[in-house]
Amino acid sequence: MTPLLTDLCVIEVSAFIAAPLGGMTLAQLGAEVIRIDPIGGNIDYRRWPLNAAGESIYWASLNKGKRSVAIDLRHAEGQELARALIAAPGEGRGMLVTNLPAKGWMDYDVLRQSRQDLIMLQLTGNPDGSSAVDYTVNCASGLPFATGATADPVNHVLPVWDIAAGLYIATGLLAAERHRSRTGAGQKVVLSLADVMLATVANLGFTAEVEINGAGRQPIGNDLYGAYGHDFATRDGRRIMVVAITDRQWAALGKATGLSERLAMIGPMMAVDLSTEGGRFAARHAISAVLEPWFAGRTLAEIRETLDAGGVLWGAYQDFVQLVGEDPRFSTANPMFSQVDHPGIGRFLTPGSPLAFGAVPRQEPGPAPRLGSATEAVLHDRLGLCAHEIARLAEKGVVSL
Amino acid sequence: MTPLLTDLCVIEVSAFIAAPLGGMTLAQLGAEVIRIDPIGGNIDYRRWPLNAAGESIYWASLNKGKRSVAIDLRHAEGQELARALIAAPGEGRGMLVTNLPAKGWMDYDVLRQSRQDLIMLQLTGNPDGSSAVDYTVNCASGLPFATGATADPVNHVLPVWDIAAGLYIATGLLAAERHRSRTGAGQKVVLSLADVMLATVANLGFTAEVEINGAGRQPIGNDLYGAYGHDFATRDGRRIMVVAITDRQWAALGKATGLSERLAMIGPMMAVDLSTEGGRFAARHAISAVLEPWFAGRTLAEIRETLDAGGVLWGAYQDFVQLVGEDPRFSTANPMFSQVDHPGIGRFLTPGSPLAFGAVPRQEPGPAPRLGSATEAVLHDRLGLCAHEIARLAEKGVVSL
Repeated sequence: MTPLLTDLCVIEVSAFIAAPLGGMTLAQLGAEVIRIDPIGGNIDYRRWPLNAAGESIYWASLNKGKRSVAIDLRHAEGQELARALIAAPGEGRGMLVTNLPAKGWMDYDVLRQSRQDLIMLQLTGNPDGSSAVDYTVNCASGLPFATGATADPVNHVLPVWDIAAGLYIATGLLAAERHRSRTGAGQKVVLSLADVMLATVANLGFTAEVEINGAGRQPIGNDLYGAYGHDFATRDGRRIMVVAITDRQWAALGKATGLSERLAMIGPMMAVDLSTEGGRFAARHAISAVLEPWFAGRTLAEIRETLDAGGVLWGAYQDFVQLVGEDPRFSTANPMFSQVDHPGIGRFLTPGSPLAFGAVPRQEPGPAPRLGSATEAVLHDRLGLCAHEIARLAEKGVVSL
Repeated sequence: MTPLLTDLCVIEVSAFIAAPLGGMTLAQLGAEVIRIDPIGGNIDYRRWPLNAAGESIYWASLNKGKRSVAIDLRHAEGQELARALIAAPGEGRGMLVTNLPAKGWMDYDVLRQSRQDLIMLQLTGNPDGSSAVDYTVNCASGLPFATGATADPVNHVLPVWDIAAGLYIATGLLAAERHRSRTGAGQKVVLSLADVMLATVANLGFTAEVEINGAGRQPIGNDLYGAYGHDFATRDGRRIMVVAITDRQWAALGKATGLSERLAMIGPMMAVDLSTEGGRFAARHAISAVLEPWFAGRTLAEIRETLDAGGVLWGAYQDFVQLVGEDPRFSTANPMFSQVDHPGIGRFLTPGSPLAFGAVPRQEPGPAPRLGSATEAVLHDRLGLCAHEIARLAEKGVVSL
């Protein structure tokens, strides 16, 4: 069975999260993704977390399932090899993704002289091309001041803008390749991390709320904005999140806890209409006050049984250790996951794409490549270099094998 | 000039964030996206934030640039119309995205009887098909316990899993359509919100860290994990985020603040190697202690001038009001944004796609449709219904115009 994107080949010159995630997303759907790595690895090759031997769990996780060609890109001969590889003929090839400064030999107009229909996607920090990273973009998003329960800004831990940018990269490369396959035209595609942030906060209405209503979202702790949602402590020291957005979910919560009647008293008491999401949001503290003892008096297991039986929308908080140890979705019972041995790092549960395509089997996740492990094969197969020539380049330090 | 995805048509039967964002992402690249809305709107049609008139800024922001056909889907005749629309012939058509239960008339195998090569992407909550939303998935991710500075869980405010799922949907639909255009085969694609979360925390190494090193990430406030990054207060009551991941960024920070020599004393004092990211992370509190008075003694404007001139990687925190009012990237000077009049809601700065394609102009953002505003045109153009028949259906309440 051929994988979904089997005849697609993307060259990646990248570091950190967004661009590698973009390439990996396509690799997980069956595209061939070839990293051009500097000899010894790029600046993110030792990024934390590391294992005890100092190998990067981070790098391996973001580059799994790719191939690596190691080339000294400061060397003119190395640049020439990279250029030839990026411009190698073939439908579905001639695609480059990078988040590094695309100057000199990697300038789009220069590369395009070697392949007229080249598709090149460049990720920048700001729309003007200046530098920015997730953490310097996020502070401008407004979200840290709306997170937590106090006026102090709270940074996110997940690099959200990198994640979203990586997925925009996958979308953008597929859209550009669709255009090329129909029109013959390649193009440069530019995406900035700041624009990903700005588009996203605007798409969710955070900015329009200010423009239209004159006020921005305030921090409300772990409550859900505009509907009912709250976190509760359980008798056995766990925490859970309960959500009731729809009328059905709200009714289910009251019924499962046996508190429907007492909850209904909140309507007249708080002078709100509890049959609306907005009414439930306005009365959320009173609702939580009624519910709290119910959760505090029960263990997580008891709560799970009752809420699941009653069709309540809820979830248990887990730290990373609990997620790994206790969540049945984090296991090989979930067809997305496989146990993969990552050389130099260890064996861990490794996801394929969360997208499950009915027509093709899910691409099995592989480990990240050893730097340069595909140098020989790729230079031979794509550029027609003979073993003698490849050995000369390695000897000279232009490539490593 | 024809838009990028001009001959692609996606039918959307959706509510809330992820599926609408998936459709909108493709609409922003030029695809035609037709929502099939229940008469009166779906359950998210009044979702907060609202404007003063009670219209949803949220719904408008997530459905801009789409068309709306309003059909009573509880009605057999309405289901028949929806089925015919989803299965309408034409290359680039026959694509459905939904996050609603795909049962009865909307079951994939049923729909497929009308169009053999149908592509249907269904978003579910959990991989087993059970319900979950961003807030009940996020609590299980481990991230709330690693966010903030204390042991209490902190929920994110941005519905990250919805955002990522929406972008996976765009990628998945393009990948499936590429496959169909080459093989003729349609397929069902399934994506769960929980799998998006699980794949993402695994792709970033949060889970492998536990599996390999036996311990999970702990909350470290607004500091950056594994490198140097910290937030500082300014003399004029603002806050900024400073980041030094690479050696170059670290050197620039010391040089711009004139504190290189004092920062260098931290190495021997803390017995760490400040030339490594890990060393700077280990010594981060000492580094911040040295830097803090420098920032506390300067205004944001002074800091901006010095750090920008020195090539330091940094950003200013903004709340949503400051983002809207002060950030030059949030303006029509940024080609991603246009001022758009959203009927019933108001005029606000509206983003197109953050992806800028060189070969085609950026699709101008439009407003969200009025419910049913495309009913007549779509039923006529796609299904060949005459005005008389459409009037009969409207009269009967099967559709609204």
